[in-house]
Amino acid sequence: MDAKIIGEITKIVGEENALTSLEDRRCYSYDARTDGAVPDMVVFPSSADEVSKILILANRYLFSVIPRGQGTGLTGGSVPIRGGVVLVFTRMNRILEIDTKNLIAVVEPGVITYVFQEEIAKYGLCYPPDPASYKYSSIGGNVAECAGGPNSLKYGVTRDYVIGLEVVIPTGEILNVGVRTMKGVVGYDLTRLFVGSEGTLGVITKINLKLIPLPESKATTLALFKKVEDTAEAVSAIIASKIIPSTIEFMDKASIRCSEQANPMGIPEDIEGLLLIEVDGDSISIESQAEKIKAVLVQHNASDIKLTRDPKEADKLWQARRVVSQATYNLNPVKIAEDVVVPRSNIPNLIRFLERLQKKYGIPILSFGHAGDGNFHVSIMIKETPEDRKKAEEAVREIFSETIKLGGTLSGEHGIGTSKAAYLGMELSPEVINTMKKIKNLFDPNNIVNPGKIFPV
Amino acid sequence: MDAKIIGEITKIVGEENALTSLEDRRCYSYDARTDGAVPDMVVFPSSADEVSKILILANRYLFSVIPRGQGTGLTGGSVPIRGGVVLVFTRMNRILEIDTKNLIAVVEPGVITYVFQEEIAKYGLCYPPDPASYKYSSIGGNVAECAGGPNSLKYGVTRDYVIGLEVVIPTGEILNVGVRTMKGVVGYDLTRLFVGSEGTLGVITKINLKLIPLPESKATTLALFKKVEDTAEAVSAIIASKIIPSTIEFMDKASIRCSEQANPMGIPEDIEGLLLIEVDGDSISIESQAEKIKAVLVQHNASDIKLTRDPKEADKLWQARRVVSQATYNLNPVKIAEDVVVPRSNIPNLIRFLERLQKKYGIPILSFGHAGDGNFHVSIMIKETPEDRKKAEEAVREIFSETIKLGGTLSGEHGIGTSKAAYLGMELSPEVINTMKKIKNLFDPNNIVNPGKIFPV
Repeated sequence: MDAKIIGEITKIVGEENALTSLEDRRCYSYDARTDGAVPDMVVFPSSADEVSKILILANRYLFSVIPRGQGTGLTGGSVPIRGGVVLVFTRMNRILEIDTKNLIAVVEPGVITYVFQEEIAKYGLCYPPDPASYKYSSIGGNVAECAGGPNSLKYGVTRDYVIGLEVVIPTGEILNVGVRTMKGVVGYDLTRLFVGSEGTLGVITKINLKLIPLPESKATTLALFKKVEDTAEAVSAIIASKIIPSTIEFMDKASIRCSEQANPMGIPEDIEGLLLIEVDGDSISIESQAEKIKAVLVQHNASDIKLTRDPKEADKLWQARRVVSQATYNLNPVKIAEDVVVPRSNIPNLIRFLERLQKKYGIPILSFGHAGDGNFHVSIMIKETPEDRKKAEEAVREIFSETIKLGGTLSGEHGIGTSKAAYLGMELSPEVINTMKKIKNLFDPNNIVNPGKIFPV
Repeated sequence: MDAKIIGEITKIVGEENALTSLEDRRCYSYDARTDGAVPDMVVFPSSADEVSKILILANRYLFSVIPRGQGTGLTGGSVPIRGGVVLVFTRMNRILEIDTKNLIAVVEPGVITYVFQEEIAKYGLCYPPDPASYKYSSIGGNVAECAGGPNSLKYGVTRDYVIGLEVVIPTGEILNVGVRTMKGVVGYDLTRLFVGSEGTLGVITKINLKLIPLPESKATTLALFKKVEDTAEAVSAIIASKIIPSTIEFMDKASIRCSEQANPMGIPEDIEGLLLIEVDGDSISIESQAEKIKAVLVQHNASDIKLTRDPKEADKLWQARRVVSQATYNLNPVKIAEDVVVPRSNIPNLIRFLERLQKKYGIPILSFGHAGDGNFHVSIMIKETPEDRKKAEEAVREIFSETIKLGGTLSGEHGIGTSKAAYLGMELSPEVINTMKKIKNLFDPNNIVNPGKIFPV
């Protein structure tokens, strides 16, 4: 990148907010999973106006602009593919407003999700989306990827809480879209068009969020099963019994063993499935909800059921689930993590398929995640060898193919980014992909903002 | 329209599914509020394939295509502005699938909302959106306008239940967008782009809906207030007390008197505000919710509170609210009905403003509606005279202006259609309107599908 251009950009944000040394830039070349290209420059804007000026320059000089929250994404959404300028939002991290009367908050994109949740909890309010990364990830990144989390079963995903946005589109125009009321249908829903668009249509600079009252209390149930089919069927049966827990988390045998090795809870060797179920609400109703769930679990042959309403005890029950993601690295150094969703009734089919796949390729394939909404995090653990890479690639393609066959989707909450772009055509028709590409082109004819994401090259 | 073109269209749908006589066509020239142009032809397609063929013809011969559900809309969304072909979906009215295991249904657009709700209730399932027209309106129309209803406070609007769509875009291509799982973020959110787009981007031919368990039971509270401020503040206080009722309906004094005249419930003359509050859930928790709400109402000087869990008794409490919309016509023959939303904390300001406006113009202005989410149905009742029309027009502009000043939006659930198109610029910036127009142009370069809606001419 031309020194002159670097100079002009530096003038916009100030020298102290621009990084140009190789070692600095390298730190912004990867996310939680993907290695990308080293950007030419990293800047920390402080306003929509600065972002706008940078985008206008980008169109003039045709350099890429890559918006980045905290870089905790898993599909390469914030990773440069060929240099350009990374915009990091750590300076735009203010909670601008907490409107306790209207249950609305306005935040800048750089606010850490957990920090925001802690702050509004002081007012008895709740913002449910809880991606595994919520202690480190930013709300801007969550919005760009439409993040979910265990709570999504009852409370929905990020999309369901974003009611309005300020977005700088690639022309440099600053758009205010959506509302800051509970309802609104005035023209096209640009708000939801930007949510989950992975930073490819514009740069989010302000977010209006809907809040809900913090649930009064919570009950947590851990259930162990000797048959994975029973585990899967218990999930369906809970939903069918007219209870929507806030969370139903699942672990298969491989995940349980992996977690036990890292941090033993004493789960017996013959256990094939684990469910972690939370119900929330007022303290009277959660009692009856938890009782009903227990009855369903017993009926589906749960071999062990632990129930608590004490937060500290609950924390212990979450232990196996919490450590598993990290513990997978004890099996092998490289993780290929997928994020497929199937209809709940097809969970047993997916699980059995993954077991067969594991045997076929002889590599560890673990599955755990948000069984309540059919969203599984499938972790393929491999060694850094061309042979293992090839196996993993083939396994991934088979998993996606099976997911689609089972009526599912390639991504529940991680997005497509660079890592799944090649597979987009397995789910979407050429006409749908073409329509999406036209929308990209409408907003960003010079392909300035976050190029190389979502669409197969 | 050319006889040759009419002949070609007739061949697509069959003679028995095409209307061409003036008296037949005239029946499809208006909706529940707006008179439009008489279409050249009315057809009843039976499949996406037929719709596709008609759209291809429309692009060849450049005639307009106006999709129509049951014509119960209030902003002219389904009304022709200059002839063309009206597509009526009464034949595409099948419930294609009720998936009780996954809590998903697939329907054709012509299904009547109420018929669908009754059908899934047999399985203990619920589809919450409940526009006032739900006994007559179709789900396709509800999706096109993003309909709401009293239930939206707790359960959200139509947008929140549409997870996937089959849409025929103006080129004639049939797109399948979205998912039939609980989650999904694969490319741009075309599903929500079509929801609420008022039939201007394409024709919806199939809808995947998310369902929830039918709430076990319900409690209904009627509260009367001598001061409208107390009424408005009670709404905020209920939400602040961490209860989200399924419904909080409001009526101002003018609405109450109007309703009493038509169908007396014995509400005293000095009552300035009425709230109708419903909580639902399991039978244990609604008891405590209703108790808490009662305490808030007492604290805010409710002069009379009636509470019931008996559906028949509840029906009686709904009487005043249910009759008011029709009863307004006893005041004057013409209704200008608006649909504004303000932040809940600004409800008292909006109410007082409307009272001043009523005095200023000397015409009846009633307000009632979904106070819980700040969505008010403001009815301006006038005589069919140029003088009254002028007054109403000025009043409407003032209402919109005040709504925007109070942080609100022009439409909560009725859409823009033709009736609010001229006011779009009061809420949206030129850049936002321009972006929306570009999207319209991208999908429909010949302006074939539902022209003259949303955007000011």
